[in-house]
Amino acid sequence: MTAAFQDFYPDEFSHCYGCGSQNPQGHHLKSYWDGEETIARFTPDAKYSGGVPEHVYGGMVASLLDCHGTASAAAFTYRALNREMGDGGDPVRFVTASLKVDFLKPTPMGVELVVRGKLRSIDGRKVWVDLSLTGNDGICAKGEMLAIRLRT
Amino acid sequence: MTAAFQDFYPDEFSHCYGCGSQNPQGHHLKSYWDGEETIARFTPDAKYSGGVPEHVYGGMVASLLDCHGTASAAAFTYRALNREMGDGGDPVRFVTASLKVDFLKPTPMGVELVVRGKLRSIDGRKVWVDLSLTGNDGICAKGEMLAIRLRT
Repeated sequence: MTAAFQDFYPDEFSHCYGCGSQNPQGHHLKSYWDGEETIARFTPDAKYSGGVPEHVYGGMVASLLDCHGTASAAAFTYRALNREMGDGGDPVRFVTASLKVDFLKPTPMGVELVVRGKLRSIDGRKVWVDLSLTGNDGICAKGEMLAIRLRT
Repeated sequence: MTAAFQDFYPDEFSHCYGCGSQNPQGHHLKSYWDGEETIARFTPDAKYSGGVPEHVYGGMVASLLDCHGTASAAAFTYRALNREMGDGGDPVRFVTASLKVDFLKPTPMGVELVVRGKLRSIDGRKVWVDLSLTGNDGICAKGEMLAIRLRT
């Protein structure tokens, strides 16, 4: 099985509720390459409902876009540097500076959601990522992220 | 004890993981008036950590701003209409159309976070709300929300 981007995060930085392998109660989101784009798949538990049980709450939508976005920023940077994750060099790590989420329609509960990331641009330590979250009937949310590479 | 904005949400719309009174496993965020602004206070459980255990994960920050923002949009609208929540008229309900979160610095774990909302403008069914999230050492995140009033 292919390792996810998050599988290469150092253990001491892997406690995130959204995507950290060391957080036993978290979502453990896993992000991968899909050609030139990145992809993650996730089916929220029913407890993460929005105002009505049939929809996913907004915080979950933002969380999925956020964790997938920073993982994608790292992946795009590794590729731009002609590096591979886990190559023994300094790990490339990103934090979110800004995330804008446009909620286009309610996100359905009980189906697998697909999160996609696309590189817009890299400018030094700044990486802009365009994101989307798709349910079983089209795009539910779009995201724009500015991620900042941490100094190592 | 003063009722929170969320206490007036109809039960059938109160399942949100972030703020719904009918969600037994959720955060139960409670928003109130504070003069002309709105305020909510919340101390995240340690499991909601970011990459490192000392910080809160980004999805939680977005969730707090999102739930407080839509509750605030409703409150600002009631006040603009010279109405009170629970006045027996049609409930005023909002959904998020767009939320932008600027993460200014890491949000500390283990302290009470204060979320504030300020009305920017109301234009028909559209309400813009400026948001902030403060830890024990200043503002950690700022938010801008466009909320849309649901037709009833």
